[in-house]
Amino acid sequence: MKYSIGVDMGGTNTDLGLVTENGNIVQRRNLPTNAYTQFEPYIKDMMKVVDEMLEAQRTIDGEAVHLDGIGVGAPNGNFYTGCVDNAPNLTMKGVLDFGKEIHKYRDVPVVLSNDANAAAYGEYVYGGAKGMKHFIMFTLGTGVGSGIVVDGKLVHGSTGAAGELGHAILYHHGRKCSCGREGCLETYTSARGIVQTYKELKAESGEWKDENGEVTSKMIGELAHQGDPVALKTWATVGDQLGLAMANAVTFSAPEAIFLMGGPAQVGEPLLKPLREAFDKYLLNIFQGSCTIRMSELKANEVAILGAAALIKMKL
Amino acid sequence: MKYSIGVDMGGTNTDLGLVTENGNIVQRRNLPTNAYTQFEPYIKDMMKVVDEMLEAQRTIDGEAVHLDGIGVGAPNGNFYTGCVDNAPNLTMKGVLDFGKEIHKYRDVPVVLSNDANAAAYGEYVYGGAKGMKHFIMFTLGTGVGSGIVVDGKLVHGSTGAAGELGHAILYHHGRKCSCGREGCLETYTSARGIVQTYKELKAESGEWKDENGEVTSKMIGELAHQGDPVALKTWATVGDQLGLAMANAVTFSAPEAIFLMGGPAQVGEPLLKPLREAFDKYLLNIFQGSCTIRMSELKANEVAILGAAALIKMKL
Repeated sequence: MKYSIGVDMGGTNTDLGLVTENGNIVQRRNLPTNAYTQFEPYIKDMMKVVDEMLEAQRTIDGEAVHLDGIGVGAPNGNFYTGCVDNAPNLTMKGVLDFGKEIHKYRDVPVVLSNDANAAAYGEYVYGGAKGMKHFIMFTLGTGVGSGIVVDGKLVHGSTGAAGELGHAILYHHGRKCSCGREGCLETYTSARGIVQTYKELKAESGEWKDENGEVTSKMIGELAHQGDPVALKTWATVGDQLGLAMANAVTFSAPEAIFLMGGPAQVGEPLLKPLREAFDKYLLNIFQGSCTIRMSELKANEVAILGAAALIKMKL
Repeated sequence: MKYSIGVDMGGTNTDLGLVTENGNIVQRRNLPTNAYTQFEPYIKDMMKVVDEMLEAQRTIDGEAVHLDGIGVGAPNGNFYTGCVDNAPNLTMKGVLDFGKEIHKYRDVPVVLSNDANAAAYGEYVYGGAKGMKHFIMFTLGTGVGSGIVVDGKLVHGSTGAAGELGHAILYHHGRKCSCGREGCLETYTSARGIVQTYKELKAESGEWKDENGEVTSKMIGELAHQGDPVALKTWATVGDQLGLAMANAVTFSAPEAIFLMGGPAQVGEPLLKPLREAFDKYLLNIFQGSCTIRMSELKANEVAILGAAALIKMKL
């Protein structure tokens, strides 16, 4: 049987999975990323884990296991160089060259990209975007990421860092963003941005007091499902903002679908209904009816590994 | 010698040119587009003109003239279908199938796209974007158009109509656009948008009276070069707006250059200086230094024909 390995490198944990040709994760392991300050022992341990997974699967299959490659999704991962460059949230500093280090152990293709690009490619290889030549993935979470497929290929651009629609400026002179600029989409539709909007709306309604304790986007989702008017207004606002950003993205590449994934998107209709209405309202007439908004078809706890594993299919 | 033919179809005139491999227009003709209400006689006359150009060139060259194809740039031109569909500003109505009609006369490749895409591809084949894999062209004129090249290919998207950055919404609930929506880039940085900004700024300064007569973007350019403060402020505003739009476009495809062309762009430094400053200010940190703003290297009176002729190179 033929398998790919997907590596989802986060600042805290690294999740690894052995993935079949049709996208089943048959083995899973993890490594504590933040336990490493050096890259060499990190990769050495990773390759031990890879050996373990392959051996466990050989026992199950009762036949040789063929590995077609290792795909890595990582924050700041650069497709062209195959390196993670000085990621601010990693304990390992400097330039981490995955291909070079992994090849000390195994002569298989190694492909690396950032996590949002990997998620988009996972949707393309294993999920709802199969067979689509043009689509865009928006990932909502701590930040807002995106991955763009044009003519069946991930757009990496001249630098390898294309597809940063979370940092397209939605409002000139808008909210301060962690990137140092103002008004980025991320400041409105990330989990944090959604909470900020909720607090602002709550304050406007005179109900917000700081001692109300911590609020999360998940709580705002629950409140919306209970009919809380401020929560519903929050999602309507976020839907409107995201719908505008998506309509703008369509003017670029005229995709046939825009996919959505990530924690805040799990709220469902309180977000999706105003999102679809806003998208229709803001979409240029010549694109009407040509592009639909869809939820990712990959499971939330599998998408990162599947996306990373899918990257290998680019090389094949 | 080998030549391509470029056809620039406008609502009033159709300009044709015979183009050498390295982008010299050696023969030019034109047809009055608006004299035709039927497509068949329009193409019949066009093919007569094509024959004339080829014959004239054969006489000059003293040898056989090889035609590698006919490229057509047309408003609403759809690359995938090869048709112009119900263009509102044409006297010929319905679906105009260029390939089908031209092939009644000549068995050569026919490629059609909209004018902004053609301009971008002209820059790629004959101009300053030679050898670039990722760039974007913005055309300023009556409207604002764009053409996008990703991985060395024009982005047409799932519908054939990708690359409409003039209708990306710059300001939520901004100026009313001819497309029926609000806040499109075009309403700010087209010739008309620039004039509107000038009038608004003039009114703010208390100087504007409607009886001042017609104002054009060209006049505002001349005033800026004479040091007129309202004209300078107009271009600074337009530069800021366009710089923001360009920085947003970079988050999509991380191009190595953004090209600019069209009448209003000819003003030069009064626009370019604030444009570059705004672009730097609004560009996401990870893209700093990776993308430059450049003027088109093609002559204003040649770009449409060269762009159309360049489209043929996609087929070859």
